[in-house]
Amino acid sequence: MPVLRIYTENKSAIEIEAEKSSNLLDVLQRSSFDIEASCGGRGVCGKCKVRVKKGQKPYLENLTPEERRHLREDEISRGVRLACKVEVCEDLDVFLEKFSEKANVLSHFTLNDFEYEENIIVKKVVLQKPSLDDQKSFELRLKEVIGNSNLKVLPRTLQKLARLKDQDFYAVIYSDEIVDVKNSSLAFGLAVDIGTTTVVCYLVDMIKKRVVDFYSFVNPQKKFGADVISRIDFAREKEEGLFILQKEILNSLNRALKILTQKNLISQDDIYVTVFVGNTTMLHLLLGVDPQTIAVSPFVPIFTENIIAKPNELGLEINSEGAVKILNSISAYVGADIVAGILSIRMHKSPKVSLLLDLGTNGEMVLGNNQFLIACSTAAGPAFEGVNISCGISAVEGAVDSVKIEEGRIHFTTVGQKPPLGICGSGIVDAVFYMLKEGIIDETGRFCIQNDTYKSYMKEVNNQQAFFITDSIYITQKDIREIQLAKAAISAGIKTMIKHAKITEDDIENVYLAGGFGNYINPKSAVGIGIIPRKLKDKIVSVGNSAGAGALLALLSKKMEFEAQEIVKKVDYIELSNSQEFNQFFVESMIFENLSQEGEQKQDG
Amino acid sequence: MPVLRIYTENKSAIEIEAEKSSNLLDVLQRSSFDIEASCGGRGVCGKCKVRVKKGQKPYLENLTPEERRHLREDEISRGVRLACKVEVCEDLDVFLEKFSEKANVLSHFTLNDFEYEENIIVKKVVLQKPSLDDQKSFELRLKEVIGNSNLKVLPRTLQKLARLKDQDFYAVIYSDEIVDVKNSSLAFGLAVDIGTTTVVCYLVDMIKKRVVDFYSFVNPQKKFGADVISRIDFAREKEEGLFILQKEILNSLNRALKILTQKNLISQDDIYVTVFVGNTTMLHLLLGVDPQTIAVSPFVPIFTENIIAKPNELGLEINSEGAVKILNSISAYVGADIVAGILSIRMHKSPKVSLLLDLGTNGEMVLGNNQFLIACSTAAGPAFEGVNISCGISAVEGAVDSVKIEEGRIHFTTVGQKPPLGICGSGIVDAVFYMLKEGIIDETGRFCIQNDTYKSYMKEVNNQQAFFITDSIYITQKDIREIQLAKAAISAGIKTMIKHAKITEDDIENVYLAGGFGNYINPKSAVGIGIIPRKLKDKIVSVGNSAGAGALLALLSKKMEFEAQEIVKKVDYIELSNSQEFNQFFVESMIFENLSQEGEQKQDG
Repeated sequence: MPVLRIYTENKSAIEIEAEKSSNLLDVLQRSSFDIEASCGGRGVCGKCKVRVKKGQKPYLENLTPEERRHLREDEISRGVRLACKVEVCEDLDVFLEKFSEKANVLSHFTLNDFEYEENIIVKKVVLQKPSLDDQKSFELRLKEVIGNSNLKVLPRTLQKLARLKDQDFYAVIYSDEIVDVKNSSLAFGLAVDIGTTTVVCYLVDMIKKRVVDFYSFVNPQKKFGADVISRIDFAREKEEGLFILQKEILNSLNRALKILTQKNLISQDDIYVTVFVGNTTMLHLLLGVDPQTIAVSPFVPIFTENIIAKPNELGLEINSEGAVKILNSISAYVGADIVAGILSIRMHKSPKVSLLLDLGTNGEMVLGNNQFLIACSTAAGPAFEGVNISCGISAVEGAVDSVKIEEGRIHFTTVGQKPPLGICGSGIVDAVFYMLKEGIIDETGRFCIQNDTYKSYMKEVNNQQAFFITDSIYITQKDIREIQLAKAAISAGIKTMIKHAKITEDDIENVYLAGGFGNYINPKSAVGIGIIPRKLKDKIVSVGNSAGAGALLALLSKKMEFEAQEIVKKVDYIELSNSQEFNQFFVESMIFENLSQEGEQKQDG
Repeated sequence: MPVLRIYTENKSAIEIEAEKSSNLLDVLQRSSFDIEASCGGRGVCGKCKVRVKKGQKPYLENLTPEERRHLREDEISRGVRLACKVEVCEDLDVFLEKFSEKANVLSHFTLNDFEYEENIIVKKVVLQKPSLDDQKSFELRLKEVIGNSNLKVLPRTLQKLARLKDQDFYAVIYSDEIVDVKNSSLAFGLAVDIGTTTVVCYLVDMIKKRVVDFYSFVNPQKKFGADVISRIDFAREKEEGLFILQKEILNSLNRALKILTQKNLISQDDIYVTVFVGNTTMLHLLLGVDPQTIAVSPFVPIFTENIIAKPNELGLEINSEGAVKILNSISAYVGADIVAGILSIRMHKSPKVSLLLDLGTNGEMVLGNNQFLIACSTAAGPAFEGVNISCGISAVEGAVDSVKIEEGRIHFTTVGQKPPLGICGSGIVDAVFYMLKEGIIDETGRFCIQNDTYKSYMKEVNNQQAFFITDSIYITQKDIREIQLAKAAISAGIKTMIKHAKITEDDIENVYLAGGFGNYINPKSAVGIGIIPRKLKDKIVSVGNSAGAGALLALLSKKMEFEAQEIVKKVDYIELSNSQEFNQFFVESMIFENLSQEGEQKQDG
């Protein structure tokens, strides 16, 4: 398979294997590099610019008319291409330059610049022949070759050793154990991010330190409840509910394992370690541990510590002598996914104060640097995921994902350029922002029915005022209220953390947006409706699946796994439901800013 | 169940639970106290004397006519009873005084006099109720109560914790893990000695530090080969042979577990640790590890190190979060059973030099003290187990187990007083001893056909001279040769070790006979035919199942488990097949001593 060496802006490189003849844009996006391609890869928008070299030369193979149309001569001569038009047939160097404004978390680390300590070692072994003068066991001979007499060896490895002892073979060492002896030197790992909605599995070559492939699927538990609370209810109310939920996720994981290994021509026995991250509830369900207490005050999980178990303890079909690791969580609503996010962004190592916002089904936030870390969680998410919004849907094909309202007209785009089916979080935030700006709603969020410019878009639906984006997609007064509640919660959460840390907004140097919503949201709109403080507007970076990236780090490096534990010890968790400060900020944050023309100029100028 | 407190000669006590209405002799013998009862418990021989008290009073309940016949008045008033006639109906103190000449290994240690460090801790737990100000996970609360934040907790325990957290419960801590939380405080262990012929399982209450019950069975692998070599051949030659052998022993062990737990009204989940000892081949077969290389020069095992595995790694049906431990071995032919024997006899701790002889199917020997330990093994066993002897059988019912030839007449006993079926090891040794003494054979082992006194007992069988013990049980010239080979091997082994240690026979202060044969053999005969040096005649002590006793020690105490590893590091193993000294001693030892009347007087006088 061709190998792509991807250079990000800070000149560091990461290697990815790509299937022959695959599409470069496809590969980059699947590997979670966030390349913009608003036309969906049809060569129309011209945004997916990357620079491609083969060895030292610009790679101009099969340059298409679409590329000639979008690229300047000097760009072409430097090897700039539209990723959507490049077919990957050989090893290439790909440079992600400042073509796109979005940066992905994968550009924040490479395999060189985080502290690396290998988790798995594979060693070629030739045992010394025994004699009557040297009768020590083959196990001791093996340990001698490896150079560590304290390694544990389990029965299955001894069984194999008895078969292989007379030939050259490979020993796989993991932690303090010789977990395998075999003819091949293959050793793989799996990093898994279990989201409430989506599960992503990264297959990693532990020796080449390379993400070989990945596979993502919809969390099959979704059919029993869209969010964390409804799954907990299902586990509590339905007989065998907990067991059913565990079974569902495990079956899907084992199916993903089969697909990934078959596709990459390896055996499931070649996978020795799996690192799981996810929110606290998803991890409870994965282990079959009843998460009931997470759902009710005082919101206490059964476990938050990291867990290392044997694969068959869980029923995960990787090498049975390997290990399954669950990264540690912080609290009932700040899970291992957030810990992994901190880990991958490395905010705990930087002297600069950063704010990490993971706006998914829940809104989890972390503020801090190498001196302090504060985390909290608000039930802000659902509205931003389209839940409880009249025409709300998640960011599936056909979802209105961006809206612009200007000069009496409405512009919008949809996911996959499909006919509009509903509106997703980023679309609603855009819509509310422009409705404020155009005076369709006022600072209190109330519809201004006297607005003449947009009169034709306003109509009553079920006795409620509504603003129509399309013929059938509209935003009601109640929807605006939902967004107000959600944005107030996040804003108040941020303010509470800032106060707790005894800093000001000016001290924050980076705002990292993680999670699906964070990837699609328009920062201008997010700031405009007051989700993120205005002062932080220019400091916003979208970091994509930072949880998955953190899981990868913990999988590849022992030091990173250890750092995850250190992060948890350092984090100061604020329970907002118990915070008077939060309640005050929450009330204050309900009102929008005045974004009418004059107001905006005053603020932005 | 009534509890027996058994006091051995050194005044130390061990507690045993006995089933109500069980027979005292039975209980003592089953718990491996070696009480002599040559009549088989019928009240005829009067040898099974023990002193019994209930509280401070002599226990005279149901004194039988048989006891009145065998016991003196002063004995009766002190509470002396025939163990075979005492029904155990209540808690009793039983004193094993110098009634019997044989001492058992269980009298060499008690739960007080070996270094004890508990292997399992059970702790009652009441978790503190959480609040919004104290949201730490239930797992952390549990660790707080236990007082160790470094303990690992596995998924199954977390699942149970979720169910038990609101009530009082018990936590079971083993090694660095909380292996269980549950409503009961029961924690049991199993010590297993896997012999080539017999398997013994001791069920131990880990909290009360008490052997609760035991169960022994014939090693089911026996049908595929009586000795180690034939089993190795079976594993090699028969398709799936290794798997079949492993399956056999595991199935039997799981059956034993079921029987023991049902009988003692506990659950298999209440058993957390199993310690296995056995010869090196039996341990390979238990783990399904091919032992082929043990059978051929240079006799190298796959493993000798101790192994700690999860029960389901093996398929052993104890608590799946518990552990299976295999004690370490010394070499291909000096197994963990010998290590356990050393451990229980504690010869490695004593300044006095001791000789341990385990004469089973193989002859394993250890010489040493707290300064040095030397071990070797000879293929001496088979003859002493009745193998390759014309009328030889093992020590089953009906086996001639002792012989006396005097004044032209032959006296013999059989196991269980049954009609004679064949002759076992101790019988053959006795017979050869008296044949020498009476001049039926000469120093070279050749039949003296001119002996008039015993002429009537001599006849040819298949063209060989033979001596008839009964009408159908006889000893041939070839049998004598087999015994000569075996005794020469053991004698030469002992001499080689003595030379290696640079000591003399006079330096040896104890000779411990372990194993079945060691228990039955008449020391006078053993010395007489030259198995054991004459100078050591009065230093011989039979120690019964010292391997099982060592397994019990390792099960109960972490320190003992560690000591077993230290023992192995200390042992200097001599491969006799490679030793010129051994070969010389072997040739020299083939000749018998002159035991004719004059000769004996000269030697004994």
